Amino acid sequence: MDEAVASPRNRRIARAVALVRRKDREEQRRFLVEGVRGVRDALESGVALGDVFHLAGSGADLEPVLRAARASGARVTAVSPEALRRLTATVAPQGIVAVAPFVDVPLADVVAAASLLAILVEVRDPGNLGTIVRAVDASGAGGLAVTEASVDLYNPKVVRAAAGSLFHVPVAHQVTVEDAVAAVRGRGGRVFAAAADGRLSIYEADLGPGAAVLFGNEARGLSAANRAMADATVRVPIRGAAESLNLAAATTVVLFEAARRRESAAAAPRRTAQRRSLH
Amino acid sequence: MDEAVASPRNRRIARAVALVRRKDREEQRRFLVEGVRGVRDALESGVALGDVFHLAGSGADLEPVLRAARASGARVTAVSPEALRRLTATVAPQGIVAVAPFVDVPLADVVAAASLLAILVEVRDPGNLGTIVRAVDASGAGGLAVTEASVDLYNPKVVRAAAGSLFHVPVAHQVTVEDAVAAVRGRGGRVFAAAADGRLSIYEADLGPGAAVLFGNEARGLSAANRAMADATVRVPIRGAAESLNLAAATTVVLFEAARRRESAAAAPRRTAQRRSLH
Repeated sequence: MDEAVASPRNRRIARAVALVRRKDREEQRRFLVEGVRGVRDALESGVALGDVFHLAGSGADLEPVLRAARASGARVTAVSPEALRRLTATVAPQGIVAVAPFVDVPLADVVAAASLLAILVEVRDPGNLGTIVRAVDASGAGGLAVTEASVDLYNPKVVRAAAGSLFHVPVAHQVTVEDAVAAVRGRGGRVFAAAADGRLSIYEADLGPGAAVLFGNEARGLSAANRAMADATVRVPIRGAAESLNLAAATTVVLFEAARRRESAAAAPRRTAQRRSLH
Repeated sequence: MDEAVASPRNRRIARAVALVRRKDREEQRRFLVEGVRGVRDALESGVALGDVFHLAGSGADLEPVLRAARASGARVTAVSPEALRRLTATVAPQGIVAVAPFVDVPLADVVAAASLLAILVEVRDPGNLGTIVRAVDASGAGGLAVTEASVDLYNPKVVRAAAGSLFHVPVAHQVTVEDAVAAVRGRGGRVFAAAADGRLSIYEADLGPGAAVLFGNEARGLSAANRAMADATVRVPIRGAAESLNLAAATTVVLFEAARRRESAAAAPRRTAQRRSLH
């Protein structure tokens, strides 16, 4: 059963509450994960959670994840509604929040793992970054790089919008555009720059294995200098009167178009083989 | 030049400030549009703006849109920073906000205009709804229907995320799922229900002209009853460990896959013709 309800002034709770601030996250190299799905995905990925806090008297729906947390060696503590509120950014928290170690990886690992690498340059909106982490995961693109001067990868709103995918996808952060482009080129990959007036449409650009796409800031897009670093500019064709897509929407369209073509390329030899076997 | 700075207690300003509340929007059948792009798109679409408020002493960058507003017959008023803050939801408003009449249209008009109709069932996040309005525009899908019990189409966060596209795309709101499905069927269109475990992938479903796709609530998806109303369930294939995509991301992938196929269908006869002309 639950341990005694810990006071919000408890030292471990205070250290965890401090993680709502970027400075403290970077000092402790840890961040907060809210909600059943996030905590469960963290545990399933093998990340060693330190503390798991849950609302005292929370119902049976939390029991499976609390049991898994205890089995993993995490310290599970029941807390008051007030303490939980200080630990979470959500209006309606699901009654559970955990402290996880940073999960970002070196740039070289991301570049090696990705079939299509998205490189986000100065992304500022936490909802966009989290949504993109989730889309990188769902599309099977395999990796993400986020440059300096972007919103913090471990901002609670990013973590929440990523819906557990931070624990599935290798992400490098605080990289420079120069280093990211050099790493992709070092493995022979093509580099594209996403722009509303891009020369190639995403349906004609070769987004095959090893390629990378640079995406710019929500308001300003990519700088001329960043565009010049790419082999070509690429656009999501815009048909209506809209000037552009939301950043996360544009990135998602590119990621899924590459996924569609990876799969039709994988299916094509099979179809040919089948056809041959009929002769 | 600018008129005298109007007091925040000015009656027209007070009526405009009231539009931050849904109840007052529905009584007045008007809503607030922030920012240069939104106001410019409204004017270009031919919508008759009533009042346009701008920050007193705002710079030359607002002059073109203010001139266009005056030419359209709108009443342009300089206001204090305090009044502007009460009129806008943004942390850093661009110094301009206008009062626009409701722009939604009857369901039948949307169904007639759409090549692929997205029907959003109980969408709750204003950022998602606005992003989807923008993606419907950018994809050329041609129309959107939003059911009752959804976030208000004229919520300032929806309007901002739509980035002017509310003035480009026919949208029906506060419809029932039953009416929307019946209207699509009445024109011979197929109805799909988007679900993570959908039977058809979006790459095999026939999303051609006249089709519609139901999308469910962010947390719960579509109810069994709503799924049963469709001809088939359809999924965006998920490759990684993510359970699903963000609602706006999933909708955008579906809209752009349909657009890609509309265009390759349109291009195919041309290619054939070219090939023939070479013989």
